[in-house]
Amino acid sequence: MSTHKQLTIGLFGFGVVGEGIYRVLNQTPSLYASIKKVCIKHPDKKRDAPAALFTTNYDELLNDEEINLIVELIDDADEAYKIVTTAFRKGKSVISANKKMIAEHLQELIQLQQEHNVSFLYEAAVCGSIPVVRNLEEYFDNDLLQSISGIVNGSTNFILTQVADGASYSEALLEAQQKGFAESNPSLDVEGFDATNKLTILLAHAYGILTEPASLLRQGITRLHAKDAAYASEKGLKIKLVAQARKLSSGKVAAFVLPQFVKADSQLFNVNNEYNGVIIESKLADKQFFYGKGAGRYPTSSAVTSDISAFGYHYQYEYKKLNRKEKNALTNDFYLDVFVSFAAWTDVNKWDFEELTEYHSTADRQYIRGIIHAEKLRDASWFNDPSVSIIVQQDGVIEKESLVHKNLKKVSLQLAGVGF
Amino acid sequence: MSTHKQLTIGLFGFGVVGEGIYRVLNQTPSLYASIKKVCIKHPDKKRDAPAALFTTNYDELLNDEEINLIVELIDDADEAYKIVTTAFRKGKSVISANKKMIAEHLQELIQLQQEHNVSFLYEAAVCGSIPVVRNLEEYFDNDLLQSISGIVNGSTNFILTQVADGASYSEALLEAQQKGFAESNPSLDVEGFDATNKLTILLAHAYGILTEPASLLRQGITRLHAKDAAYASEKGLKIKLVAQARKLSSGKVAAFVLPQFVKADSQLFNVNNEYNGVIIESKLADKQFFYGKGAGRYPTSSAVTSDISAFGYHYQYEYKKLNRKEKNALTNDFYLDVFVSFAAWTDVNKWDFEELTEYHSTADRQYIRGIIHAEKLRDASWFNDPSVSIIVQQDGVIEKESLVHKNLKKVSLQLAGVGF
Ligand SMILES: NC(=O)c1ccc[n+]([C@@H]2O[C@H](COP(=O)([O-])OP(=O)(O)OC[C@H]3O[C@@H](n4cnc5c(N)ncnc54)[C@H](OP(=O)(O)O)[C@@H]3O)[C@@H](O)[C@H]2O)c1
Ligand SMILES: NC(=O)c1ccc[n+]([C@@H]2O[C@H](COP(=O)([O-])OP(=O)(O)OC[C@H]3O[C@@H](n4cnc5c(N)ncnc54)[C@H](OP(=O)(O)O)[C@@H]3O)[C@@H](O)[C@H]2O)c1
Repeated sequence: MSTHKQLTIGLFGFGVVGEGIYRVLNQTPSLYASIKKVCIKHPDKKRDAPAALFTTNYDELLNDEEINLIVELIDDADEAYKIVTTAFRKGKSVISANKKMIAEHLQELIQLQQEHNVSFLYEAAVCGSIPVVRNLEEYFDNDLLQSISGIVNGSTNFILTQVADGASYSEALLEAQQKGFAESNPSLDVEGFDATNKLTILLAHAYGILTEPASLLRQGITRLHAKDAAYASEKGLKIKLVAQARKLSSGKVAAFVLPQFVKADSQLFNVNNEYNGVIIESKLADKQFFYGKGAGRYPTSSAVTSDISAFGYHYQYEYKKLNRKEKNALTNDFYLDVFVSFAAWTDVNKWDFEELTEYHSTADRQYIRGIIHAEKLRDASWFNDPSVSIIVQQDGVIEKESLVHKNLKKVSLQLAGVGF
Repeated sequence: MSTHKQLTIGLFGFGVVGEGIYRVLNQTPSLYASIKKVCIKHPDKKRDAPAALFTTNYDELLNDEEINLIVELIDDADEAYKIVTTAFRKGKSVISANKKMIAEHLQELIQLQQEHNVSFLYEAAVCGSIPVVRNLEEYFDNDLLQSISGIVNGSTNFILTQVADGASYSEALLEAQQKGFAESNPSLDVEGFDATNKLTILLAHAYGILTEPASLLRQGITRLHAKDAAYASEKGLKIKLVAQARKLSSGKVAAFVLPQFVKADSQLFNVNNEYNGVIIESKLADKQFFYGKGAGRYPTSSAVTSDISAFGYHYQYEYKKLNRKEKNALTNDFYLDVFVSFAAWTDVNKWDFEELTEYHSTADRQYIRGIIHAEKLRDASWFNDPSVSIIVQQDGVIEKESLVHKNLKKVSLQLAGVGF
């Protein structure tokens, strides 16, 4: 049995999560951890903790020899990057929940952490309370991962759930913010950036792939139309923002964040409100599903607490898959089965599709469903058109090989009398 | 980064799981693990592996200095106990999937393992591929666990799913056996012994409670009646065999394995066939759900592989909760909201119940629902009557305090004209 380190923590941030961790640590003596100093931004804010605990001076934490663990919970990614890299250079280990900062600098942070022989843990950065990073790292390290498919952003999932239940988008967003699920800058959530950041982190631990979040195919939920929601509910489907990675038969990995139709038989169907859920498909274990709260003070604190405890037992990520000889790599050479809805036929170019399989028209909204190459989709003029909404079908990743053999019923739109 | 041990494995058993692990290791060079010798029982069985690999002599493995890990996958708990304890005494670490052996000797095995400073891992013993032991041990180690509630036996869950879909009980059992989900002795599965063994192991890692499996309140699925299944499906419920532990407001823990009605809003509702699922409710993280295959060659091999890998990285369970100052303890001082069905009124004594809340009678089957003290239930003459079936309601654990305040509508059975 290894012994537990005594931890003296320097905490950055005293917001939703930071104050949560402060309260939890005060109630959890078994962690052998105490907070020596808290660095915040606004010294004049009223806080429910002794004034002597607080400072606005980074160095009071980073230069304190007694502090052996930095817990970084601020909402500013650029400042967080400075704090974390400085901490590493000073030989201090770090726990962070800042997925934006981590995703954007992962390669460098891993290197720096190894150079300085410190620990860097960030379970709270992906899916809040669900131990998905650690399980990918530790548990699936020798199983061939076929796919990961997850609802990883609590705030958008809360909004989508409320909207499906009849709320307006803006009401739902406001409520997500009031409940502490939303990022300070809500476009990180609703434009899918946050989910993309999390997917970037998952790719590292699942496949040993390091990538820029900005290079991943991404759509948020802002362009979803009320008619899309109506269409989904008519068909017994739910619309979810899904982050997905799938190993193709070429050996390369397809990865994207897109709204997706989810069927009732999928475990993701019952992931509602701020809950997150991740389906991991592997060769040996087949389908596994992890579900829990993805945001909020205490669920997020729970993940940070687990990291603190693991650090106390000398745990660090091994990045096992990064160090393998056979490297995995991303590709955009695959097809997607997508549903596209839009106001006027001129909005979408049907020639971008390999196959059109469905077509539907109402007074004020048109829909098509078709198979499109991922790069064609990303580069299509209408991909960024705010009046066009794009939703992937469940299991909508299609490989070149299966496309050729698939006998898709082409809907003759001309015959349907549409000048499309 | 710690270095990976080179592992030389002595494997006991070459059945469903043992042969699975042999195949997986041959395909997974990243594990740095090779099998030097396999001990089996019947030397004359035809095997799909080189004959020189096999022996029936335990000592060839246990006395081999080069072998530094014993992987024990036989179906005989008593022999497994001998093998594992001998291995410990010889300073060898062990991975096992033998829940019966582990549950029945856990306290001693933990002591022995610590004395001899070896590792003992058994993720495959609970819920097959789902990493529930390791997550309880590592991830929830400082969160207050309110309850664990799981479908932990793949074989009974397969049977219950098939029966709900119209199969007969015996057909379904046969199919479970053919598919390799069932224990060699099926009464371990269908009488709930296997689930009780798993609950025993979960109690150690969740609450630091060591108990005898035989002391837990238990019913299997053999007494469920075709009419119970019909009643459940009419009400939109499913019957599942659920292993449950719940922390009561007294601070003590209620634990049992009983058939349970599961509602569509529970994550357990969609756990079908050989899949397992565990809901963990904790103070910080709230509800988490882990889902995956609970039995079968490769799902089980997946868990064994993860243990082999973890052992390669020097992992051992810390049994953190066992070493806490504040000990948890079991209690039977709680009430259960149960549904009881039976052939004739004389089978069940209504005076055993605190409250009767429902009553229903058909030509050949009677049902009552009521609140009963756990000890009254266990000691009732009809608890062991093969013609009486007992099913707990979802969230059916009721504390003394809430019982007093609960305004239960007593159904006057006398008025209903029944001489009960
Ligand atoms: N909320 C969630 O559910 C959740 C879930 C997962 C991950 N996260 C991540 O956790 C982190 C914190 O989120 P949050 O929701 O707790 O944010 P928050 O409630 O907005 O709190 C941010 C805190 O950071 C402090 N801060 C900002 N800039 C700073 C600077 N330059 N130096 C020192 N302190 C600074 C703020 O100080 P003042 O108090 O002085 O303004 C505030 O205390 C973020 O990275 C977020 O992405 C949050
Ligand atoms: N099957 C599953 O899905 C599953 C899931 C979780 C855990 N488990 C556990 O895994 C273990 C193995 O299960 P299994 O399904 O693989 O069993 P199995 O298919 O019945 O195979 C049992 C193996 O053990 C060998 N064996 C029995 N007694 C032995 C002895 N005294 N010395 C040496 N070898 C002996 C048998 O040898 P012969 O081949 O010579 O007969 C056979 O190879 C059990 O503890 C079980 O509870 C199984």
